[in-house]
Amino acid sequence: MRPPIAWVGEAADGHLELLDQTLLPAQEVVLELRDIGGVIDAIQRLAVRGAPAIGVAAGYGVVLGVRHAGACDPAELIRTLGAVCDELGAARPTAVNLQWAVQRMRERGKREPDLAALLDEAHAIHQQDAALCLQIGAHGAALVRDGMTVLTHCNAGRLATAGDGTALAVLYAAWATGTRFRVLADETRPLLQGARLTALELHDAGIPVEVIADSAAAGLIARGAVDLVITGADRIARNGDAANKVGTYAVALAAAAHGVPMYIAAPFSTFDLELDDGSAIPIEDRDPDEVLGFGGMRIAPPGVGARNPAFDITPGRLLAGLITDRGVIAPVDEEGVVRMLG
Amino acid sequence: MRPPIAWVGEAADGHLELLDQTLLPAQEVVLELRDIGGVIDAIQRLAVRGAPAIGVAAGYGVVLGVRHAGACDPAELIRTLGAVCDELGAARPTAVNLQWAVQRMRERGKREPDLAALLDEAHAIHQQDAALCLQIGAHGAALVRDGMTVLTHCNAGRLATAGDGTALAVLYAAWATGTRFRVLADETRPLLQGARLTALELHDAGIPVEVIADSAAAGLIARGAVDLVITGADRIARNGDAANKVGTYAVALAAAAHGVPMYIAAPFSTFDLELDDGSAIPIEDRDPDEVLGFGGMRIAPPGVGARNPAFDITPGRLLAGLITDRGVIAPVDEEGVVRMLG
Repeated sequence: MRPPIAWVGEAADGHLELLDQTLLPAQEVVLELRDIGGVIDAIQRLAVRGAPAIGVAAGYGVVLGVRHAGACDPAELIRTLGAVCDELGAARPTAVNLQWAVQRMRERGKREPDLAALLDEAHAIHQQDAALCLQIGAHGAALVRDGMTVLTHCNAGRLATAGDGTALAVLYAAWATGTRFRVLADETRPLLQGARLTALELHDAGIPVEVIADSAAAGLIARGAVDLVITGADRIARNGDAANKVGTYAVALAAAAHGVPMYIAAPFSTFDLELDDGSAIPIEDRDPDEVLGFGGMRIAPPGVGARNPAFDITPGRLLAGLITDRGVIAPVDEEGVVRMLG
Repeated sequence: MRPPIAWVGEAADGHLELLDQTLLPAQEVVLELRDIGGVIDAIQRLAVRGAPAIGVAAGYGVVLGVRHAGACDPAELIRTLGAVCDELGAARPTAVNLQWAVQRMRERGKREPDLAALLDEAHAIHQQDAALCLQIGAHGAALVRDGMTVLTHCNAGRLATAGDGTALAVLYAAWATGTRFRVLADETRPLLQGARLTALELHDAGIPVEVIADSAAAGLIARGAVDLVITGADRIARNGDAANKVGTYAVALAAAAHGVPMYIAAPFSTFDLELDDGSAIPIEDRDPDEVLGFGGMRIAPPGVGARNPAFDITPGRLLAGLITDRGVIAPVDEEGVVRMLG
């Protein structure tokens, strides 16, 4: 499988390549992006998705945006940089990695107002993300034990990051040490990132995976068919409340009701320590047509609308732990989060 | 909208008409069935679905099965009847209304071993189901109040019964008395009975309805967007534990976690008082392809399988009440169930 994000060439004439994830697994189409509008569009229509991957793509998007404006001097570049960062940072509201990456680009550009420095920073974000995935995997691998069935929701893997993923990095790391387990992948309506992406990358890696309807998770957990739940996150508040793909909260309620440990895996860049709890995390509402149809086919009768919140909030108290690049936070509370990441 | 089930003609030369619900809302196709094989196939592939409607269809299926065998004398008819009832009763395992209707047909045939009596009994089951729906509606209507947002899962309406439905009968009855409310319909993967059927019949009735992904229910409940939950059931045990379409349990956990009252509506024929609790209810596992694809399009990558339990069990203790044709059982426990229905 191709990496989801690549930069080709130098700052002056290079371009960003994104694997269009909306078309997987049926087609592998690579988008060649040379302007900020294309990057924002790719982020908004989920051609690139997953909180860490959005951050990495946005870093390169800043390079493209600043280059296109063609500033004549450092002061003008810094002004352009501000506008570009504002525009990219607003592309999607929930995942905080986007703002985090854009802020890094902004600060680097202020210190070193030239295009080469900005590309260097984007590469640094990219490479760091891959390293963070490995660290998350290393910290979490021991939680997965032989014979387990592990449930995951959405895709928090190689297609959601610049490395092995967050939740799935834990599984890849466990698998690499010889631990053998099975995965149940929630299909993750409406955009089916579980059925399309998680199933694809785990199957490619040789890890046994079966897809389930999202709504089947609770019943399977009740019947003892799940030993461990791991998902990613898009933003985690100071007290450990985590925004993740809509449906994560329902899984957390079922896991808690039946004593199945659930972990959320995320790098430090997904934490937003300025927010006291999950109620302050903005939840993106997306196009109702994502729910009303599928693959160009209308499901619901004409005249019927839909609500389409893209995320929900899982209270930290329902989680057994947060797996970060710096270690596992358990129990999940403000004290633990601040001690690890403050 | 056409009724989901109709018998046309007399016992000797009549036939069963079923609206093929797998094709709604895009197409209204009526199946004309003249043999038991067609009825079993229609039940198994969900052309007719909903616990009460399955029972009604099975009653007519018995007529067709016995007629086809062409018994020469009462003793032979009774033997044929036994085989036909066994075959129909095994068509789907979870909804107990199927076994209940088949048992009624068996007993009537033993008392009056002729085809006209069997058709009379099938008509009686059919007409009784419509009456039960009205009674459920009348008992539940007062639970719905002006300005509420009511969440439902799957379809427990006019397409699931021979009348106004079970859960939706409550809504129709409330609407008829002038109560004004909105409905959120879980789309109900994998077969989308909510997006296709509940949205269709509520919209046709002029009741405001929006579709949501099943996994969005918990987050919306947490945000205070839902005031009341009502669903149907396929089988209810003596203690009030209820089997219903997969995903109902996740909704019940979220409703309970946030103090939103949830009711399950069902006629007495859905209760199975021989079962102590929900753990004894058989859960049908259906074809993985229902999850892996949609509308002939494959979603998941080749080589990946799926698990597809069609139902789950909601513990009675999570419910505010059971709305039956005889009244509302609240609190939900064995004492209440036996007092109302024993």
